[in-house]
Amino acid sequence: MNFKSMRYVLSRIMLAEAAMMLISLGVSLIYGEFDKITSFALPIGLLVLLGLLLGIKAQKNGEIYARDGFAIVAFSWIIMSLFGALPLMLSGMIPNYVDAVFETVSGFTTSGTTIMTEIEAFLLDGFRGVLFWRSFTHWIGGMGVLVFVMAVIPMAGNRNMHIMRAEVPGPEVGKLVSKIGKTAKILYGIYLALTLIETALLFAGGMPLYEAFIHSFGTAGTGGFSVWNASIGHYAAVGNPHALYYEMVITVFMLLFGVNFNLFYFMLLRQFKASLKNEELRLYFGIVAAATVAIAINLLHTVSNFGEALRKSVFQVASLITTTGYGTVDLNAWPSFAKTVVILLMFLGAMAGSTGGGFKLYRILILCKSAKNEMRRLIHPNSVIPLRIDGKTIEEKTVRGTYVYFVVYSLVLIVSVLLIAIDPAATDFTTAFSSTLSCLNNIGPIIGGQSNFASFSYAAKLLFTLDMLLGRLEIFPILMVFFPSMWNQRKSKVKKIKKAAA
Amino acid sequence: MNFKSMRYVLSRIMLAEAAMMLISLGVSLIYGEFDKITSFALPIGLLVLLGLLLGIKAQKNGEIYARDGFAIVAFSWIIMSLFGALPLMLSGMIPNYVDAVFETVSGFTTSGTTIMTEIEAFLLDGFRGVLFWRSFTHWIGGMGVLVFVMAVIPMAGNRNMHIMRAEVPGPEVGKLVSKIGKTAKILYGIYLALTLIETALLFAGGMPLYEAFIHSFGTAGTGGFSVWNASIGHYAAVGNPHALYYEMVITVFMLLFGVNFNLFYFMLLRQFKASLKNEELRLYFGIVAAATVAIAINLLHTVSNFGEALRKSVFQVASLITTTGYGTVDLNAWPSFAKTVVILLMFLGAMAGSTGGGFKLYRILILCKSAKNEMRRLIHPNSVIPLRIDGKTIEEKTVRGTYVYFVVYSLVLIVSVLLIAIDPAATDFTTAFSSTLSCLNNIGPIIGGQSNFASFSYAAKLLFTLDMLLGRLEIFPILMVFFPSMWNQRKSKVKKIKKAAA
Repeated sequence: MNFKSMRYVLSRIMLAEAAMMLISLGVSLIYGEFDKITSFALPIGLLVLLGLLLGIKAQKNGEIYARDGFAIVAFSWIIMSLFGALPLMLSGMIPNYVDAVFETVSGFTTSGTTIMTEIEAFLLDGFRGVLFWRSFTHWIGGMGVLVFVMAVIPMAGNRNMHIMRAEVPGPEVGKLVSKIGKTAKILYGIYLALTLIETALLFAGGMPLYEAFIHSFGTAGTGGFSVWNASIGHYAAVGNPHALYYEMVITVFMLLFGVNFNLFYFMLLRQFKASLKNEELRLYFGIVAAATVAIAINLLHTVSNFGEALRKSVFQVASLITTTGYGTVDLNAWPSFAKTVVILLMFLGAMAGSTGGGFKLYRILILCKSAKNEMRRLIHPNSVIPLRIDGKTIEEKTVRGTYVYFVVYSLVLIVSVLLIAIDPAATDFTTAFSSTLSCLNNIGPIIGGQSNFASFSYAAKLLFTLDMLLGRLEIFPILMVFFPSMWNQRKSKVKKIKKAAA
Repeated sequence: MNFKSMRYVLSRIMLAEAAMMLISLGVSLIYGEFDKITSFALPIGLLVLLGLLLGIKAQKNGEIYARDGFAIVAFSWIIMSLFGALPLMLSGMIPNYVDAVFETVSGFTTSGTTIMTEIEAFLLDGFRGVLFWRSFTHWIGGMGVLVFVMAVIPMAGNRNMHIMRAEVPGPEVGKLVSKIGKTAKILYGIYLALTLIETALLFAGGMPLYEAFIHSFGTAGTGGFSVWNASIGHYAAVGNPHALYYEMVITVFMLLFGVNFNLFYFMLLRQFKASLKNEELRLYFGIVAAATVAIAINLLHTVSNFGEALRKSVFQVASLITTTGYGTVDLNAWPSFAKTVVILLMFLGAMAGSTGGGFKLYRILILCKSAKNEMRRLIHPNSVIPLRIDGKTIEEKTVRGTYVYFVVYSLVLIVSVLLIAIDPAATDFTTAFSSTLSCLNNIGPIIGGQSNFASFSYAAKLLFTLDMLLGRLEIFPILMVFFPSMWNQRKSKVKKIKKAAA
C-alpha cells in the first residue's frame, strides 16, 4: 500500500470538502442565518487543519496500484461522510451523530433515503443553509468527488485511471480524450451545464431560485432529497398552477441524468447517429416506455383519465429507474402489479457512466447476451460466438467481472435483508426487502410498512449506511477494506499464491 | 436432431409410465375402489398403444448429441405430465384438465404445490388409488424417470451420459462406476432402500401402511404431497400420541434425501472419513443448524418452551431447505425475521445430486469461492488461484456454467414474478414472489396472502406449471425447446457461426 500517495489524495479531498462547505455557509449568510455560522465554520476549520497536516510530506506523483485506488476511494468517501455530517448535527437539525452520518451518506451516495420525518419546518425556521448542504452533497456525490479533484488538480496519468475505475459506476471506464484530467473536466462541464439548465427552467416556471437549486441537485445526482415532506408531490398538493410543468421538467432531467455522459460528449461532437444507435440507450428508453404504459394501464381504475395515470406513472418510472427517488404519489397505495414493476425497476438502475445507481443496464446487457451465447454453446459445444455490444467485442475479463459483480451484489443484498429482518421496524418481508434494496441501489423510498428510515434501530441504520456506500462505490472498494490480503505486503502475498498454485 | 433415437426413448418412457400407473390401479383394487378402474385403464391403454406405435422403426443405439439429450428429457417430462394428469381428471377428483396437469407436474417435479383445497374428503371417499398415484409421481420424479429407464433398459454408453446430464440436478454429473446403466442402478437401489426404511419406521410407529407410503414418497422425492389438509401437522392437531415420533422420522429422512446420493454410495464402500469431510455436506448441515437455532430463538415468545420452538423450527428448516414443503405450522403466523429466513432457505435448496430442488448448495460454493478469488485478483491482478472444492480443482467451464445458470435462473424468476403479479390472486409482492419461488424451486408452500394455488387464474397456473418444469430440469432443457437454433440443421448452423465470427 502506497500510504504517501494515499495521504496526498485524502488531504486534497478534505480541502475540497471544506471549500464546498464554504459555499453552503455562504447560503446561510445570504438568508441571514447567522446562528448557523459555527455549525459550518467548525467543520471547515477542522477539515483545513487536518487536511494540511495529512498533506505534509505526502507524495504527489508516486506510483499506485489497483488496490491503492480502491483504498483511496473507500477512505475518501468515509472521511467525507464523517465530516459532512457535522453541520447537520451542530446546527441541531439532526442532533444524533449516527442519524446525521446516515443522512450525509445518503446524500453523498445520492440515495436520498432520510431519517427526517419533518423537513418543511426546518425550511421555515432558519435552516436554509443547512438544507442546502444536505442537498449539495447529492450534487457532489453524483459525478464523484474524486473525479472532481482530478478535474481540478493535475496528477500523474496512471494513478488517476485506477482511482476513476474505482469511483465511476459501470463495468468499464472509457477515456474520452487521452488525458484523464481532461476527461474529468469534460464530464464535470456537462454535469454542471445540465444542472444549471434545469435550475433555469424550474426558476423560469416560477419556482423560487433556492428550491430550483435544491431540486436540480437532487435530480442531477439522481439523489432525491427535497425540502418538502411530500417531495415533488408538494406542488400539486398545495394547488400550485405550475405543478405539472415542474413534474415534466424534472421527469425529463431525471431521464437525462440516467444517460451515460459519454453519449452527451459524442453528441456535442455531432455524432448523433452513433449515439442514438447505442444499445444500452435503446434498452433504457425501451424499459422506461414499457414500464410507463404498463403501470398507467394498471392505474386506470384509480384515477379519472389515462392522461392522469400516465403523468403519475412516467414520473415514478423515471424516478425509480434512475434511482432518484422523488415522489408525487404514495407508492404503497398502488395496486400490486404496479408495485411489483416498481420493485423490479429499483433493481435495474439506469445506464453505466450516468450519475444513477443500481445494477446498471450495461451489465444487464452483458449478462443477457452472454447467457444467450452460453446456451448456444450448450447446443453446439464447439461454437465460439464473440459477445458484442454496439459492434464492439466485449473482453472476456469484463464478462467475468460482471458475473462476479452480480454474485457478490446478490450476496450482499441477501445478507443485508436477513439482518434487517431482525429489526422490529421491518414489519414484513416486503419492507425488509425494499428498504435494503433502496439503500443498496441508492434509491430512496421504501415499499411496505414504513414511510422512512427514522423508526429503524441504530444497528439497522449503520447497516443501511454501509449498504449505501457499498452500492454507490459498486461494492468492491468498500469490501476490499475488510479483506486481509489487501493490507499484506506484496511479497508475502506472491509467496502465498505460489504455494497455493503448487 | 436425431428423431429416431428420441422416438425410442420416448416410447420406453411411455411404457414405463403405464407400468407405474398399473401399480396405482392395484392400490385402487386393494381398497375395492372398482369405480376407478377405467380412470387408470384408459390412460394405461393409451400409453401402451402410443408407446408401441412410437417405438416402430425407432433407433435403439443411434448416436445422440448434447442437444438431443436436452430435447429427449424435455419431451419426456412434458409427455409424462400430460398423460399422468388423466387419472386425476377421469376419476373426477380434479375435473379440470389444466388443474390436473398443474397437480401432476407439481407431483413429477416434486414441488408439492397443490390446487386442491380439500384432500381429506377424497381419502375417505374412495380415492385412495388416485391419491396414491398423486404421491407416487413424487417418487418417480425425485430420482428422475429417465434415470429409471436407464437403470432398467440397457442402452449405449455415450447417449445416456447426455440424458443423465440433462435430467440429474447439479452442475456436474459424476459416474460412480464405469457404466452409466450400473450407476443408475446403484442410485435407484439406494433411493428405494431409504424409502422402504422410512416407510417401515413410520409403520412401526403406528402410522397406517398406506399413509406411511404416501408420506415416504413425499419425503423421498422431496415433494410434499400429503393426504391431510394440515400436512404432517395433522397428527399433532388430532392429538395423535405418535405425532412427535412421526415428525422426527420425517425430519431425519427429509435431511437425508437432501444429501448427494454419491456420498451414500461412498459410505457403503466404507469411505466414511472422505464423505464426512465433503465441503458441501458441511455447508448443508451448517446452514440447517444455524437456521434452526435462529428461528427457534425468534419463535421463543410465541410458544411455551425452547424445546417446542426447536421442534417447529427444525421441521420447517429441513422441509424448506430440501424443498420438500411438508408443514406442521402456519408459516404466515411466524414473526417477520423467521419468515425472511424461511424465504432465503427456499432460495438455496439442498445438495447437488440429491432429490431436492432449488439452486443447490454446490453452486453456492462455486459462486462464493469464485467471487472470493476474483476479488483477490482485483488486488493482485497477476495472481492465478485455482478454484478447489474437496481438494479437486473445478474446471473453468463448470464455473462459467454456474454463473450463466445463476443469471438465467434470476431472469426466469424476475420475469415470472412480474407476470404473476398481474394476477389479482397475488395480493401483494410477497405473495407474488414466494409463490413463484415455490414453483421454480419445487418447494410447495406460499408465504403471503394465499394458502394454496387454487385461486390463481388459468394463465397463472400454466406459468406456474412451466416454472415447476423449468426448476426441476434446471431450466436449460425446457428453455432450449424454445430456442430456434436447437432445431436448425447442424450444417447451416456452423455456417452461421463462422459468419458471425468473421
